[in-house]
Amino acid sequence: MNEDAEMSAIVASGMTRFGKRKEDLLSLGGESALPILRKYRSDIDFLLVSNSYSGEFNSISGINTLLATYLSLDGVPSLRVDNTSGSGGTAIFLADMLIKSGQARAVLVTGLEKMSTMDTRHVTSVIASLLPEEERRQGPSLPSLAALLAQLYMRRYGASRESLAQVSVKNHRNGAANPYAHIQKEVTLEEVMQSPVVAEPLRQYEFSPISDGAASVLVVGDGDAESFTDRPVYIKAVSLASDSASVTARGDLMGLEAVRRAGRNAMRLSGISKPDFAELHDMATVLELVQMESLGLCEPGEAWKMVLEGETEVGGSMPVNTSGGLNSKGHPIGASGVAQVVEAFSQIRKECGGRQVKDARTGLCLSMSGFGNSAAVTVLGDEP
Amino acid sequence: MNEDAEMSAIVASGMTRFGKRKEDLLSLGGESALPILRKYRSDIDFLLVSNSYSGEFNSISGINTLLATYLSLDGVPSLRVDNTSGSGGTAIFLADMLIKSGQARAVLVTGLEKMSTMDTRHVTSVIASLLPEEERRQGPSLPSLAALLAQLYMRRYGASRESLAQVSVKNHRNGAANPYAHIQKEVTLEEVMQSPVVAEPLRQYEFSPISDGAASVLVVGDGDAESFTDRPVYIKAVSLASDSASVTARGDLMGLEAVRRAGRNAMRLSGISKPDFAELHDMATVLELVQMESLGLCEPGEAWKMVLEGETEVGGSMPVNTSGGLNSKGHPIGASGVAQVVEAFSQIRKECGGRQVKDARTGLCLSMSGFGNSAAVTVLGDEP
Ligand SMILES: [Ca+2]
Repeated sequence: MNEDAEMSAIVASGMTRFGKRKEDLLSLGGESALPILRKYRSDIDFLLVSNSYSGEFNSISGINTLLATYLSLDGVPSLRVDNTSGSGGTAIFLADMLIKSGQARAVLVTGLEKMSTMDTRHVTSVIASLLPEEERRQGPSLPSLAALLAQLYMRRYGASRESLAQVSVKNHRNGAANPYAHIQKEVTLEEVMQSPVVAEPLRQYEFSPISDGAASVLVVGDGDAESFTDRPVYIKAVSLASDSASVTARGDLMGLEAVRRAGRNAMRLSGISKPDFAELHDMATVLELVQMESLGLCEPGEAWKMVLEGETEVGGSMPVNTSGGLNSKGHPIGASGVAQVVEAFSQIRKECGGRQVKDARTGLCLSMSGFGNSAAVTVLGDEP
Repeated sequence: MNEDAEMSAIVASGMTRFGKRKEDLLSLGGESALPILRKYRSDIDFLLVSNSYSGEFNSISGINTLLATYLSLDGVPSLRVDNTSGSGGTAIFLADMLIKSGQARAVLVTGLEKMSTMDTRHVTSVIASLLPEEERRQGPSLPSLAALLAQLYMRRYGASRESLAQVSVKNHRNGAANPYAHIQKEVTLEEVMQSPVVAEPLRQYEFSPISDGAASVLVVGDGDAESFTDRPVYIKAVSLASDSASVTARGDLMGLEAVRRAGRNAMRLSGISKPDFAELHDMATVLELVQMESLGLCEPGEAWKMVLEGETEVGGSMPVNTSGGLNSKGHPIGASGVAQVVEAFSQIRKECGGRQVKDARTGLCLSMSGFGNSAAVTVLGDEP
């Protein structure tokens, strides 16, 4: 019997293009997993499915066994993990644990969601079902919370309105270089600032679109990794943390305590103090800025200046959301956190073409649920 | 830093009475967790929520962070695990792994479901959403699959019609002695045989009712267990296995391959060849019989005779479903598998009053999803 793995590693990945897709939920999952299955089907001994809303959006339950059967992985144990928009990062946390505890040797993680079955109003209402009932009754949705946060951020740090919009410009530029992104189109600062107001002051181009899509990775133990690929990417740490589900009960809307704690813990465990790039959870532009600060990627109040100075661009000192982020790549809830890890895997393997970060050896992914209700931070690197 | 636990143990439990409850989903979860929180709130460092249908039945998502906040466990990492009716056993599998991998020291597992928000027809249709679309279109629901299995079982083994109904008589007798059971009422063989036909030949009293309810356990490492209680119950093994989600694709409806494999694996890992009692997934009477055989608790074709001979009664040689089982205790989907473990905990601690199995030292719980799509088998015992 082998020793338990000390660390897990990603050895293969796949994803669909995000966007409004005509395929059904299982087909999307299958499309994302296909490149992995083609080479490693017989190695897979666990299937983790990251999905939040198959019941609400697709009238499907038991998605994990349905997907296993669809993928011809009958007999492979499976489960569905849900942590709303942080489901993907939570699935990576479980995959890492399955490998390190010796319960599995090769875990297929597939994140998937198909949201375009419903109109925007209905989707927003379904997602607002993660808020405590008292708060839901007062009417705040995630977009309105983001708007409050934007006002607070600008006031507290003197951040310019344009710095927020510039996050969208950057992320759309990155998304235009990502063949898997939903919105493969650049936008100008003017276009962002002239798009319709969603929640004052934030505008349409500053929010993630409603997307369908799926992303998959294959996770194995460090001892096995090189038998799968000559360029494994190691999961150096994953940490999961939570905050109050009641946003109004938190001391400071800008606190994002779950993000802060998951980040600090993952950095400490990985021994990496500053990653070469980061994929953040930019459901709204302002969140990317606040998350950079919560994670210690810069000092408090500095993120907006870094954006204006181009430091978070692909060629900057701290590239953020090279994939296009949720903002341009799209945000199929259960798939997003897995897709972030797909991007990190590709960056560290130098497979990102026009959006490749030079010398990318370590990366950080933040998968967040609700409005910081929970956060999973994964740190990846090219050596164990 | 402490060594990782070699084994996990249950040190506290709680549950609501199952049934049609006026309380909402979070209140039920809270009621089940209260006896644990009262003593051990500050020890808890992970919350696993077992729930399948909060979206469909209660229009709630993000149930894990909502419950954490409701329980004043803000800051405790959490996730929702779903494996339809096998969710509870799957949550125990994850809790055991969290403890043994050192990711957590004290995991609160809460299974909960509130189904009485919908009528029977609607509930059946929601649950049928776990079947592959092709099969769903042909119309089979889980009750009609159980009816097919009953016909097959009787034909193949010459089992009497009464032996199936007798499972219901036994389970209702046990449930009548369980203050947490939904149907706390004995039924006679005649009453079972005269209840309305649901799917020929099976009748209403042979199916689990639609119930609301919640169940909780606290899981810690073997090294810590005795600091929590002087009578811990050890999780000697948990095993998860899957089968095709397509029932028609399986070679033999009676095969229940996932049950067979999870059972064999859990027995082997636990070193226990025959437990002192078993909690099985009797969504329909015939399933209890077929599961006994799949798990090797008796020879194929013998379970129906054991029931008629009283061997599966509380005082028999292999007591099955002393809690009343799904049939009488009720089956709130996400709660059921956790409630089985609550019963095993109580049996092994000799706290079961009128339904106490004499000298119960080891027990087996089978939590099954769909129609054997997946199975989690947990073996528990009074020593590590
Ligand atoms: Ca270990």
